[in-house]
Amino acid sequence: MKFVQFKNGNDINDIVAGILVDGLVYTITDIDSNLPATVKDIIAAGDDAMAIIRSADVSALTGVPESALTLVSPVHNPQKYLAIGMNYQDHADEARAAGIPVPTNQLWFNKQVSCITGPYSDIEVPWVSDKIDYEAEMAVVIGKRCRHVSVEDARDVIFGYMVSNDVTVRDWQAASQTFTLGKSFDTHGPLGPWLVTDDEIKDPLDLKMSLWVNDELRQQANTGLMIHNIYEQIAHLSTAMTLEPGDILATGTCAGVGIASNRFLKAGDVVKVAIENLGHIENAFVDEKK
Amino acid sequence: MKFVQFKNGNDINDIVAGILVDGLVYTITDIDSNLPATVKDIIAAGDDAMAIIRSADVSALTGVPESALTLVSPVHNPQKYLAIGMNYQDHADEARAAGIPVPTNQLWFNKQVSCITGPYSDIEVPWVSDKIDYEAEMAVVIGKRCRHVSVEDARDVIFGYMVSNDVTVRDWQAASQTFTLGKSFDTHGPLGPWLVTDDEIKDPLDLKMSLWVNDELRQQANTGLMIHNIYEQIAHLSTAMTLEPGDILATGTCAGVGIASNRFLKAGDVVKVAIENLGHIENAFVDEKK
Repeated sequence: MKFVQFKNGNDINDIVAGILVDGLVYTITDIDSNLPATVKDIIAAGDDAMAIIRSADVSALTGVPESALTLVSPVHNPQKYLAIGMNYQDHADEARAAGIPVPTNQLWFNKQVSCITGPYSDIEVPWVSDKIDYEAEMAVVIGKRCRHVSVEDARDVIFGYMVSNDVTVRDWQAASQTFTLGKSFDTHGPLGPWLVTDDEIKDPLDLKMSLWVNDELRQQANTGLMIHNIYEQIAHLSTAMTLEPGDILATGTCAGVGIASNRFLKAGDVVKVAIENLGHIENAFVDEKK
Repeated sequence: MKFVQFKNGNDINDIVAGILVDGLVYTITDIDSNLPATVKDIIAAGDDAMAIIRSADVSALTGVPESALTLVSPVHNPQKYLAIGMNYQDHADEARAAGIPVPTNQLWFNKQVSCITGPYSDIEVPWVSDKIDYEAEMAVVIGKRCRHVSVEDARDVIFGYMVSNDVTVRDWQAASQTFTLGKSFDTHGPLGPWLVTDDEIKDPLDLKMSLWVNDELRQQANTGLMIHNIYEQIAHLSTAMTLEPGDILATGTCAGVGIASNRFLKAGDVVKVAIENLGHIENAFVDEKK
């Protein structure tokens, strides 16, 4: 199943969830008005809510073409948006060459929730930097409140997967060992286009991932090439903290980022990230408005 | 004005806000049933909601003694909980002596929202570490959605202040340059006891701050000794990101943390943090349940 969220009015809070079936989006609350309106709350509502959605006969409902909607991130309000750094060997190698130390342990940082934006939304080149870069990543969305999850059980707590671009302001990233601010500029967290549920993906560790800047292929990898795979990530994180339904984990990027060849993004550039079976996101870069 | 939040039932989501007046807590929705139930939503509701609360005649209402309530954090569900490291010179010096590099810029990391706990709640010593430490800090709560706030205007976006203890798992902190996991264990973010509104504090940069472990004074400072003061913090963060009502900023700790003298916390210890005019929090450490 593929969940989407879209704007349903002018209020920033008017975000509603739907499922995508044969190119048409069916609003969740049209399936059952007692279901939660947004994806995070649907995930938190658990198996009963999902059973209702899975058994719905959408042929009796009115669907809207996906292209007619303004999609936002399939999860726009997670409690946590965490990301792991240096998690593909070829990227760790290029990062080391660019002067970024390579960790021996899982290296986690936060992208602020306020940076989340839609799969086709504009991304800002901020006033304060011209060192804007991209990072293609698969995002994992947590399905169940959990703590102390073993590697073996980790897939059971995954709700699904999205495409992400961990947009980064390299000079702000380098200004602090924690990366935090350079990863958290407004609009620098595009996610989507869909949240594809785990049952639709045979093996999340065998998906091709690609990124283009203005139609030039810059990154290409397979999610199987992660140093710490998604199950090890969940086990490690949940040793420290409770993961909540809707929490987002960006699982690392591969080689080919802009800083490795000293080519940064500027207004007018378009970056597309595609992951096998998860669709693609495509975002135009624009100058931050004064 | 002093806001509190307390449990109003057995459901984890049954958290309601009140104001503290002469030792009695008055529930906000008793003042006006149209007001939001929780502090973050009250802050987001803006000046109109605050005007209703400020003008309320609580003598006509039933107050409950503060001591009869189970207080939780005055803000339990912020979009962001950020913290600055090495922000008092004496702590930066002791951190350097302990092998932690001292930054030249503002060093920000996230405490996960899931680590937030109440002002008198138990704090867990996790299975995986015996290097548990404390850090007395003043927490600032943002009052208005804002971006690109100047140092001069920063006080206008502050809603109020709380006492915090940035409980830290030192070996997990040291295991990653980003600090993230070592700062984010469940229960390691006690906050409170009250959210004191800005108008009650003459100068937030002139407040005495103290921390005791089992009645032994370990940390003592004044908030005026910050390297990057709270206005500079808000200006820097808001260069990158939109700050939202209810966002929490932990503003740094002073010298005297346990790692500096190789004394870590264990089950049975009690840590108290007090800040002038903001009250105190006091948390017992207990072993994480198996």
